[in-house]
Amino acid sequence: MTQLTAARQGTITGEMEAVAAAEGRDPGWLAAEIAAGRVVIPYNRARNFAPVGIGNGLTTKVNANLGTSPLRSCLDEELVKLKAAVDAGADAVMDLSTGGDLEGIRREIIAASPLMVGTVPIYQVSAECAEARADGNILDMTPDQFFDVVEKHAVSGVDFITVHCGVTRAVVDLVDARPRVGGVVSRGGAMLAAWIREHGEENPLYAQFDRLLEICLEHDMTLSLGDGLRPGAIHDAGDGPQVAELVVLGELARRSRDAGVQVMIEGPGHVPLHKVAAQVQMEKDLCDGAPFYVLGPLTTDISPGYDHISSAIGGAVAAMAGADFLCYVTPAEHLRLPDASDVREGVIGARIAAHSGDIAKGIPGADQRDLAMSKSRKALDWEGMFAQAIDPVRARQFRSEGDGLAHEVCSMCGRFCSIHLDNLTKPDSAATEETGTGKAGSPGS
Amino acid sequence: MTQLTAARQGTITGEMEAVAAAEGRDPGWLAAEIAAGRVVIPYNRARNFAPVGIGNGLTTKVNANLGTSPLRSCLDEELVKLKAAVDAGADAVMDLSTGGDLEGIRREIIAASPLMVGTVPIYQVSAECAEARADGNILDMTPDQFFDVVEKHAVSGVDFITVHCGVTRAVVDLVDARPRVGGVVSRGGAMLAAWIREHGEENPLYAQFDRLLEICLEHDMTLSLGDGLRPGAIHDAGDGPQVAELVVLGELARRSRDAGVQVMIEGPGHVPLHKVAAQVQMEKDLCDGAPFYVLGPLTTDISPGYDHISSAIGGAVAAMAGADFLCYVTPAEHLRLPDASDVREGVIGARIAAHSGDIAKGIPGADQRDLAMSKSRKALDWEGMFAQAIDPVRARQFRSEGDGLAHEVCSMCGRFCSIHLDNLTKPDSAATEETGTGKAGSPGS
Repeated sequence: MTQLTAARQGTITGEMEAVAAAEGRDPGWLAAEIAAGRVVIPYNRARNFAPVGIGNGLTTKVNANLGTSPLRSCLDEELVKLKAAVDAGADAVMDLSTGGDLEGIRREIIAASPLMVGTVPIYQVSAECAEARADGNILDMTPDQFFDVVEKHAVSGVDFITVHCGVTRAVVDLVDARPRVGGVVSRGGAMLAAWIREHGEENPLYAQFDRLLEICLEHDMTLSLGDGLRPGAIHDAGDGPQVAELVVLGELARRSRDAGVQVMIEGPGHVPLHKVAAQVQMEKDLCDGAPFYVLGPLTTDISPGYDHISSAIGGAVAAMAGADFLCYVTPAEHLRLPDASDVREGVIGARIAAHSGDIAKGIPGADQRDLAMSKSRKALDWEGMFAQAIDPVRARQFRSEGDGLAHEVCSMCGRFCSIHLDNLTKPDSAATEETGTGKAGSPGS
Repeated sequence: MTQLTAARQGTITGEMEAVAAAEGRDPGWLAAEIAAGRVVIPYNRARNFAPVGIGNGLTTKVNANLGTSPLRSCLDEELVKLKAAVDAGADAVMDLSTGGDLEGIRREIIAASPLMVGTVPIYQVSAECAEARADGNILDMTPDQFFDVVEKHAVSGVDFITVHCGVTRAVVDLVDARPRVGGVVSRGGAMLAAWIREHGEENPLYAQFDRLLEICLEHDMTLSLGDGLRPGAIHDAGDGPQVAELVVLGELARRSRDAGVQVMIEGPGHVPLHKVAAQVQMEKDLCDGAPFYVLGPLTTDISPGYDHISSAIGGAVAAMAGADFLCYVTPAEHLRLPDASDVREGVIGARIAAHSGDIAKGIPGADQRDLAMSKSRKALDWEGMFAQAIDPVRARQFRSEGDGLAHEVCSMCGRFCSIHLDNLTKPDSAATEETGTGKAGSPGS
C-alpha cells in the first residue's frame, strides 16, 4: 500500500498520524486530503524518519538542493551542506549530484538525512552516458537505462523523484517553433528536449509512464512531475510551451493518482510578481489541486548574488496563493555551486517566504510565533526574542556585535528606544513594568 | 515657488525636466502629477544634486537610513555608510542621528550626499533635551524648541523631514484605551505620545501645523508625514489607532497641498502579506494619491538578522500595489545599529523589491534590464550578465569563487549546463552559436 491507496481505503497510517500531530490537524481530515490527491507524504518504504506532509491546508514546506557537479565533487562537502540545510530548518533535501560516485553519494546522503530525500534520476543517466564514452552524453540514453536508474533510486530509499514526463515531442515542437528569451533552462528538460530532437521519438518518460508508476507504487516513492519548460526568464512566464507542458502534467497526475501513486507538480522559475498568483491557480486547476512545488519563483532576472531574496519575494506570494512546497534558491544561483553558507541563506530565505505565506493563507496557528516574538519585543526580553527568532544564532550574534550590551535596549536607538519610552509613559504600563518578561503575557493591559 | 506651486502655475522647472528625462516621461505629464500632489520632488532650494521624483507612474525609489545613536556615534562611520548606500544604488538617505554633534553630522552628510537627504527633527530635539539636564528628556520639549530645530534643518538643506503630526491627543487616547501587541514602536511617535500623556495638551506638530508649512514653503522642504502609530507587530496591522492617524494625515496632506507644500505619507511597518495591498489602497484613498513611503513592510516578526528579506517581500508587494518609496530595512534591524555592510544588504534588498514591484505595476521599460540579462544568460555571456546585475561586484565575486572558470558554463552544472545543451541541440541554434554574444540579440531565432 502507498499512503494514497491506504487513505483511499480509509486506513490512517502511522505516517498520517505523525503528520497530523505535527500540523495540529485531524488525522481523518488529512487522510481525506491525501485520498483526494491534495496532500502527499513522500516517504519511501525503505526509510525511517519523521514524516512530513506537503499540500493543501498544511504549512508550506522548504526544500534545499544539494549535490556535486562535474566541476566540484566532494562527498564530505555535501554532508556538510546537508547538515547546514537541516540546521537551518529545511523540510526536505534533493541530491542533484552529477559528479563523482553518484550511487555512493546518494546512499550516504540518504543514510545521513533526517529529512525526506528527492532526486532527479536523469542526471545520473546523463553522467553515466558521459562516463561510458569520451564523447558520450544524454543522447545515448536508452529507455531501459533510465528506468534501471529509477529502480536503483527507489530501492536505495529515495522519497520523491523529479521526472520531466511532460516534455513531450509536441511540447518540444512548440518551444522550437516559437521565440523564447531564455530557452529551456531546466537541466532535465533540456536533456529530454535534446534527446527528442536527436531521435525524433517520444519522450520515454511519457511514452512508458506506466513503468514509472509500477516502480513508484512498489516503493511508495512520490512522483514530482518536473516542469522541463519552466520559464528561466520573466519574459517567458506563462508562454505556450510552459502551459502546454502543464496540461500534460495534469493528465499524468490523474494517471498517477488512479494508479495509487502519490504525485506533486513542479513549477517555475522566473515569474514577474503580478503573474505569480495566476501561475498557482493554473496549476491547481489543471492538476486537480495536486501539491505545487515551486522553484522560487524569482520575480526579477537581474539579482544574481541575491537570488535568495527575489525568490523569497516570489515564493511568499506563491505560498499565499496556494503553493505548498518551496524549493530554495541560494545566493549562488546562476553563478556557481552553492556552499554550506549559501545553503543556510537559501533555506532561511525560503522559510521566511513560506512562513509569510502561511500567515497570509490562514494556516491555523501560523502567526502564534510572531505573537510570542512581539510580546518579547514589547517586554525587551532578549532571550525570549532569540527563542522565537527564525535563526536564534544569527539574532544573538547581531545583538552581541552591538555596543552597550549592558542596556536592555539595543545600539540602534539606545536611550531613545521607542518601546522603553512607550512602556514607561503609557497609562497602566508602569505598574506592570517590574514583572519583566511576565508582562509580555498581557500586552497593553 | 515650490515644485508644487510652480507645477500649479504651469511652470516646468529644471528639476521637473531632469526627473522627466531620467524616467523617460513627458515633462508636462510630470508637472500635472506634481500639481495634483501625486508626485513630489524633494529638493531643498539650498541643495544642488540630481533631482529624483517620487510618486505615481515613476519607478519605485529606495531610501537608506543612516545616523549615529547614543551608544555608537562616529561621523566617519556615517560617511562610510553614506558611500555604501550611494554605491548600492539608494535614491535617498535619511540622517537619523541621535548621538554626537548632531548639527555637524547633519551638515557633513548633506555636504557629502549626491542624493536627497531626509531627517526626523524631533530626534534632535530629544537629544538636546537629554543634553540640557542630566534627567532631561523629550517631556521637556517646548513647541518653539521643536520649530527652531525644523528651521535649522531647512536652512541646512534638508530635502524632506519626517514629522509625526498625526499623533494627536485623540489618537493617543485610542492607543492607550486598546490592547496593542507591539505598542508604539515609532521613535518619534513614542516621543510625542509620551509628551501628550505628560502635558495633557495637543501635539504641537498638529496644533501648530501652519508653522511647519511656513518653513517648508520657504525652503521647498518636502513634508513626510510620519506614522507614529505604525504597527510594529503583524497583529497590530490595520488597527484603530493606525487608521485613525492615517485619516488625520489625509487631512494634513490636503492642508499641505493647499499651502503649496509638497507632501508624502509614511506607512508601516509590520504587515501580514495578505493585508499589504489593502494598506496601500487605504493610503491612496485617504490621502488623495499622495506618494506613499513605506518602511518594509515586514511580513513576519520572527526574522531578526534577516529582516531585509521579510521587508523585501512586503516592499515588493507594496510597490506592486502602488507604494512609491521604500525605506530599506537592514539585517541588523531590531538588533543593533547597522554597519556599512548591513547598509549595502539593505539597499540591494529594497532595490530588488522596488524593481520587482515596478515590473508588476507596469512602469514603462522596467523589464528591459531583465530582458538584456536573460539574453546574456542565453548567450552564456558573463560580462553581459555582470553588466546587467543589480550588484555586478557581488555577481563577479560569486562566479570567481567557483571552480572551472575556464569554462563558459558555471560550476553548478558544469558540462550538464542546460543552456549549453539547449543552444547546441535546438534547431537553428547551431548556426547562430558562433556569433557569441551577438546571438543574444535574437533569442530563439
